[in-house]
Amino acid sequence: MFSGAQVSLYPMSDNFVGIILDAVKALDPYRDRLRIETDDISTLLVGPPDILFAAMHDLFVAAAKTGEHCVLSAAISRGCPGEPNDAICGVNPSLGQAEPLAERITAALAAVETTAETGQPTAAQFSLYVMGTGTHMDEIYGCIDFLKRSGTFDRAKNFCTRLSGDAGAVFATIREAFFRFGDPEGHVTLDITVSANTAPRVFSDAPRTL
Amino acid sequence: MFSGAQVSLYPMSDNFVGIILDAVKALDPYRDRLRIETDDISTLLVGPPDILFAAMHDLFVAAAKTGEHCVLSAAISRGCPGEPNDAICGVNPSLGQAEPLAERITAALAAVETTAETGQPTAAQFSLYVMGTGTHMDEIYGCIDFLKRSGTFDRAKNFCTRLSGDAGAVFATIREAFFRFGDPEGHVTLDITVSANTAPRVFSDAPRTL
Repeated sequence: MFSGAQVSLYPMSDNFVGIILDAVKALDPYRDRLRIETDDISTLLVGPPDILFAAMHDLFVAAAKTGEHCVLSAAISRGCPGEPNDAICGVNPSLGQAEPLAERITAALAAVETTAETGQPTAAQFSLYVMGTGTHMDEIYGCIDFLKRSGTFDRAKNFCTRLSGDAGAVFATIREAFFRFGDPEGHVTLDITVSANTAPRVFSDAPRTL
Repeated sequence: MFSGAQVSLYPMSDNFVGIILDAVKALDPYRDRLRIETDDISTLLVGPPDILFAAMHDLFVAAAKTGEHCVLSAAISRGCPGEPNDAICGVNPSLGQAEPLAERITAALAAVETTAETGQPTAAQFSLYVMGTGTHMDEIYGCIDFLKRSGTFDRAKNFCTRLSGDAGAVFATIREAFFRFGDPEGHVTLDITVSANTAPRVFSDAPRTL
């Protein structure tokens, strides 16, 4: 199954170029397990979901540790009908997805529970899309049940779910939502936004300006 | 039909707060036709697709005109089963979507053709997701045919389509893709990224660092 992401990193800083070029060094340990291609809008990462999310986590945390307001935005996909299979993905479609929904929820909760802390406070929101199956809402509701019990659930927003907590747990929660739910062979995508060091003034002024 | 977006604006500048607070003034002409709610991650815009895209276009262009590298990222949705209907959307589900695919492609091309220029060069990429219908790939392929003839098509990338051109034509192309394709009553979403004033050095260095 083809699995990958188009990832963009946005440091809200005059030094955004330097922060990005430093942060991408965090991808070095993954270069033999990911296909990586970049252009001026985003960087393509192709590989198995666990490596994909570990790499995105490390990229984001490296940028966030600068203390600047940084956002990672990514379009993540598995099983896209338009994509060729890629050997580097090496995903067993049934792995972690053959069990009944209730068992997958339990496994997802355990995976988040056992994730190491990064020490980087993070706010995130994401949308899960499950295409071309009549049961897609069942899988989404099952995923929502997992999210509400994950320890990172903040609140439901229009069109997405908001998470908050340590970057480790937040990325693990999104990874499990992506990997455990939806048809194992089906097309599942995520639209994620992960933020750190946000400027309170934008938010506090916003009700007056937005 | 419920139609809206979660929109984030990312100015890659130490003055990102000031740029955001100035840019949101561009939403003022739309306040009576959109429901607008903001938090520290994104701003919710709820309203009919034409107003939604006009507001996002004006917000993005206002920020891009500062000359700073700015990105607008949005999760856009219509017909989401989990969302209540909202009177402000006022979308006639059959409007512009009842015709055969070929006629919708022609109408979409005409709409982009007649869009006024903004004078803001823009690069963008987006993914169109059509949920819960067996024919969703037909609609996507029809949309791809429109995109390739839209005048803004740059290239297909993994998981998304890249556009480039004047901000007016680029936003019009994405609006038509969102509005004309997919089941009129169905759940259709877009994940869009629109960029201006990008730093060539990131891209030119990237092949050596990514």
